[in-house]
Amino acid sequence: MGELTEQSLVRRGPAPSRGLRAPLPGPAGPLDGHEAPAILERARAVVDPELRRALDSLPGSMRRIALYHFGWEQADGTPAAGNAGKAIRPALVLTAAGALGGHRSAAVRAAAAVELVHNFTLLHDDVMDRDTTRRHRPTAWTVFGDADAILAGDALQALALRLLAEDTHPASGAAAARLASCVLELCAGQHADTAMERRGPHEVTLDEVLAMAEAKTGALLGCACALGGLYAGADDADVEALDAFGREAGLAFQLIDDVIGIWGDPSRTGKPAGADLMARKKSLPVVAALTSGTEAATELAKLYQGPYEDGELERTVLAVERAGGRDWAQQQAADRMARAMQELSRAIPDPEAAGGLLALAEFVTRRST
Amino acid sequence: MGELTEQSLVRRGPAPSRGLRAPLPGPAGPLDGHEAPAILERARAVVDPELRRALDSLPGSMRRIALYHFGWEQADGTPAAGNAGKAIRPALVLTAAGALGGHRSAAVRAAAAVELVHNFTLLHDDVMDRDTTRRHRPTAWTVFGDADAILAGDALQALALRLLAEDTHPASGAAAARLASCVLELCAGQHADTAMERRGPHEVTLDEVLAMAEAKTGALLGCACALGGLYAGADDADVEALDAFGREAGLAFQLIDDVIGIWGDPSRTGKPAGADLMARKKSLPVVAALTSGTEAATELAKLYQGPYEDGELERTVLAVERAGGRDWAQQQAADRMARAMQELSRAIPDPEAAGGLLALAEFVTRRST
Repeated sequence: MGELTEQSLVRRGPAPSRGLRAPLPGPAGPLDGHEAPAILERARAVVDPELRRALDSLPGSMRRIALYHFGWEQADGTPAAGNAGKAIRPALVLTAAGALGGHRSAAVRAAAAVELVHNFTLLHDDVMDRDTTRRHRPTAWTVFGDADAILAGDALQALALRLLAEDTHPASGAAAARLASCVLELCAGQHADTAMERRGPHEVTLDEVLAMAEAKTGALLGCACALGGLYAGADDADVEALDAFGREAGLAFQLIDDVIGIWGDPSRTGKPAGADLMARKKSLPVVAALTSGTEAATELAKLYQGPYEDGELERTVLAVERAGGRDWAQQQAADRMARAMQELSRAIPDPEAAGGLLALAEFVTRRST
Repeated sequence: MGELTEQSLVRRGPAPSRGLRAPLPGPAGPLDGHEAPAILERARAVVDPELRRALDSLPGSMRRIALYHFGWEQADGTPAAGNAGKAIRPALVLTAAGALGGHRSAAVRAAAAVELVHNFTLLHDDVMDRDTTRRHRPTAWTVFGDADAILAGDALQALALRLLAEDTHPASGAAAARLASCVLELCAGQHADTAMERRGPHEVTLDEVLAMAEAKTGALLGCACALGGLYAGADDADVEALDAFGREAGLAFQLIDDVIGIWGDPSRTGKPAGADLMARKKSLPVVAALTSGTEAATELAKLYQGPYEDGELERTVLAVERAGGRDWAQQQAADRMARAMQELSRAIPDPEAAGGLLALAEFVTRRST
């Protein structure tokens, strides 16, 4: 899953060289690149105490695993500095609530609930994908075993929905229903991802991989924005527009993340060059290339059918590029961001009020730096 | 986990021979043994359509796994006769609601939510415990793989809490909070169970194994009764008494289930004689025996330390019995049922009104046959 955590933000490389420099529609004004970090810091400051309180209410065995996963404790239970990610999703909840005239403080529980759901999916995805590192630390399942990581994920989902069930805000019921629906979409997205990785390079369509990325990455970003709207008392149309804004920005993020996974500078991404290609990942640029009907697509499919062989990385990168995978992904990302801006200006016509959400969307796709 | 599903009810053997025949306190009157099956059938008739509707709202990939797990579809998606268990928990919700003067029909969503949570835990427990059979069919993870079984469980939890979040009944928020808290307890119980099975025979106390059984089996039965109370508008004290009734009855069930797992007639239980002992399960009678301080306890601990060897089964059964494990479990079960009856009469003083819940409790512990 594309995660908008510190880890993935760190490995965001230099800005892509093409296709993303077109001027944007919608709310404008030069962003100085400092606004988003300040928003994130403010969100973290109010959401972290709520999260800590929630985690402290867990039964001891679940609390231990959760606090480790959040980076607040070592595996042996001693305190740790904490590195629980950038809190993009809670910041979207609070910023959306504030932008629509709601009280940010009233939406803190909803913000924490979204972050808990995000972390429940990370715990489970790591088990399923056998990922061994998360936020620069061994994943929970490698430390506590599969069973405990599954149980801790289950507990975080329950905790998230309990936070909303106990919230007396008039929007909490609708928010809980929406967050639960989002979980269903996240599950379907993760299912599609693992199912697609098992299929051959010719057996995946671009529509499928886009739908998967929307379910896996876009849905929760959209839900975060929508919950902010609900807590501000926004009407249905505005809530849906906020959801669409988050979804489109999430897709833009995933497209850029996939581009960087292939063409990013390893010294900046912290991952070996071309790791996704060597693992035969069916990322967005790769599927665009495979389905391009070009000669390079045929070559790429051949390369992708066999196990990775030494020295073929450069040929693979070149085939994706020659088949148009990179251009397509960058153009798609620009299109998605343009759509995100349109949806945003629909929900929040005042550019001043929309500025915070815009800055966050720019930040996650690193278009402003 | 002790499951009160058709499967485990079928393997309920003959009534234990001692300790459970003392007259009961609380609501009385001869039960003809037909009341509970009729209650279960009526519950199934209203809850099944609600469950089907809920499952049909899942994304396709999750729906397929869930319908298989519920026995309503074959693995290939063709319809199946259905064998989704006895619906004890939904029946407890509806019967408790009715007994306290509430409308049973208003509590159908809550009943379905409890059943969804139960099935979410079954899906995940089967993955963790590597159990290969459930309700006479291959478990979901053996058919669809671990990842899909985990995802389907996640989806069922979300679906359960969405049902309550979308329910306009005034009790739905409190019910959702209570059900989510119950999930946390179920997680802690499953954690304790797997952790205990990894420890040596001397390293588990009776209090620990009782606490584990309460969390794993008693908590959701208690929650089901409490939700019925909430939906009937019962006051806090009555809701807590109903919860305690369900918990105590659940513990009685687990104690009897464990006794039958050792001394039950294989031709009636459908399991090879002594399977739990051969697997070195730290069931309640075994831990009672191990911690009895008797000579037989020493022998049992020795037997339990090594791998199972041919022919030692009879010696193990005898050691548990001589160490008092069977007598203790039967006395405990009787005590728990007595406490359950006390709690029940506290919440529902009218024996007539309490009759349905009493019949269900008798039924799950098979004390009336």
